[in-house]
Amino acid sequence: MSLPNRNTQVQLRRQREGFPDVADFQIADAPVPEPVEGEFLVRTIYLSLDPYIRKAIRGDHPGHAALNPGDVIYGRTVCRVVKSRSHDVKQGDYLVAETGWQNYAALAPKKIVQRIDPALGPLSTSIGVLGMPGLTAWGSVAHVARPVMGDTYVVSAAAGPVGGTVGQLAKLAGARVIGIAGGKEKCDVALRTYGFEACIDYKKDGWEQALQAACPNGIDIYHDNVGAPLLMTLVKHFNLYAKVVMCGRPGDYHSGEFGGLSLGPFIGKRAQLRGLVVYDYEKDLPQYLRVASSLVREGKLRFKEDHADGLEIAPAHFLKLMRGENVGKAIVVLGPEKG
Amino acid sequence: MSLPNRNTQVQLRRQREGFPDVADFQIADAPVPEPVEGEFLVRTIYLSLDPYIRKAIRGDHPGHAALNPGDVIYGRTVCRVVKSRSHDVKQGDYLVAETGWQNYAALAPKKIVQRIDPALGPLSTSIGVLGMPGLTAWGSVAHVARPVMGDTYVVSAAAGPVGGTVGQLAKLAGARVIGIAGGKEKCDVALRTYGFEACIDYKKDGWEQALQAACPNGIDIYHDNVGAPLLMTLVKHFNLYAKVVMCGRPGDYHSGEFGGLSLGPFIGKRAQLRGLVVYDYEKDLPQYLRVASSLVREGKLRFKEDHADGLEIAPAHFLKLMRGENVGKAIVVLGPEKG
Repeated sequence: MSLPNRNTQVQLRRQREGFPDVADFQIADAPVPEPVEGEFLVRTIYLSLDPYIRKAIRGDHPGHAALNPGDVIYGRTVCRVVKSRSHDVKQGDYLVAETGWQNYAALAPKKIVQRIDPALGPLSTSIGVLGMPGLTAWGSVAHVARPVMGDTYVVSAAAGPVGGTVGQLAKLAGARVIGIAGGKEKCDVALRTYGFEACIDYKKDGWEQALQAACPNGIDIYHDNVGAPLLMTLVKHFNLYAKVVMCGRPGDYHSGEFGGLSLGPFIGKRAQLRGLVVYDYEKDLPQYLRVASSLVREGKLRFKEDHADGLEIAPAHFLKLMRGENVGKAIVVLGPEKG
Repeated sequence: MSLPNRNTQVQLRRQREGFPDVADFQIADAPVPEPVEGEFLVRTIYLSLDPYIRKAIRGDHPGHAALNPGDVIYGRTVCRVVKSRSHDVKQGDYLVAETGWQNYAALAPKKIVQRIDPALGPLSTSIGVLGMPGLTAWGSVAHVARPVMGDTYVVSAAAGPVGGTVGQLAKLAGARVIGIAGGKEKCDVALRTYGFEACIDYKKDGWEQALQAACPNGIDIYHDNVGAPLLMTLVKHFNLYAKVVMCGRPGDYHSGEFGGLSLGPFIGKRAQLRGLVVYDYEKDLPQYLRVASSLVREGKLRFKEDHADGLEIAPAHFLKLMRGENVGKAIVVLGPEKG
């Protein structure tokens, strides 16, 4: 197969402090890069959209250099090796890698996030239930929260790839799982796709009463995907010794946006709060994939994706995610799986 | 021995929202009460002064009825049974009980906080190192924090009865103990009486640098006696997986006074925060007293008391505690131990 010689990219047009806009991005045309010795060329297939990208747009993402106008937007993709000058990968390999928002990227092996065994499940799940979001859920349920049968287990952002997987894994462990999500469509996904016992729409009046009714025995475990204000409401319904998994990219939590936790109620409930960062569980990925891919193939661990087609639509699809309007894992389809 | 027939009391004169004043209290003279069947009469010896009394003065102490003008101020004392009409206690018994700020009280057995074995240590330690403050420290170190040898263990309010005991128990468990306290006199107590490795005066400029210098390997455990603002500074110096014991009476922590914890830094550090309430460890008191009383007798577990004499001085001594000017456990001596 001969490669095209042009590469479409989405670049940053301007940094912005406030809510991003499609005009902050620009579509550009660049040559397909040539891998140097030790590198390899990939063609991107599925682009993962994630909230942390907003920080990159602001130019202050921890762990990444600041994005400047003209830079390709950071992003992870499912991609396929089309040419290799590295001993680490061979042509045809499928990877999750830090390619950015573009059709082609020449990468060093350190940009590999995960190697994909296509037999485990649909390729796109490698940035969802069979990837970092799923592993995050595994760390939360199997390592941090460790529910026992009958625990009442509340999950916020219940329709998302982490929340939905947390709920399903907790249910498989015998917990009674209650979701919290914004809007009827997301609640329906939590109930019907993921099998939550109940899902509370926090945008509806009386949601706290509805939560209380759904948790008649109080809350034993809370997987927190969203931060302080909701947590301050939920603590009122905690049982003694309730566990909280504080989950999220640390940089996404700003005191200005999410701050304001007061300690008193947590002391009174003898609550146990633990921070979770998925990187700690990367060594457990093979074990998780063995367990989870079987469950996916058996239909016991389900996922929901929100696809958009083509790089041109990526900025708008990202803004939809930022507004909380997507339902399921936000993915941009950049090219075919084969070839 | 014939009993006097008059009982001096300190009563609430007026409720107050802001910082209390000696004029909010009044000294009154009342008859010595007569215990009814099932009750007993005690003479108070040592009055424990505690921050939660401020809430009672405001009329909003959780777990207690509101204090109204003319009511005796709540308080725990070391007291002696002088007349018993109860099968639970006999004349001459020493107790810690909820007597309030007065010389005599007729009590039902449910007002007993702790029975005192005078052989274990000085009577006054039953409201200090051999009482609830000590048991709180035991719960924190032995049950929640569980240090391992070499852990860097930071304790706030290090000169107080809880903080001082936490530091000494943690040191006995092999930890390297660093205190935080306000002012040179308190830091000296932490260093010289309690044997802390270092004690940082948070009222001095550059205290954070001093703390960092005292913790060259980072902080593994933090016993939090004071709440959110200090915690937000300390988290910067936490090691990964650092543990925080959130300790205090839940009602003492108000979002208005102490609030404003943002979660991001705790997620990044994978911190583990647990609330501690001493009531959970009451069943462990006999075990704690066996361990701690030996240590006290051997001089390995030390304590510091700040005494004042007579009920008339109690309001002023309480205000000194509220201003943070006391050094050691704040106690008012109400009467002799014998007789």
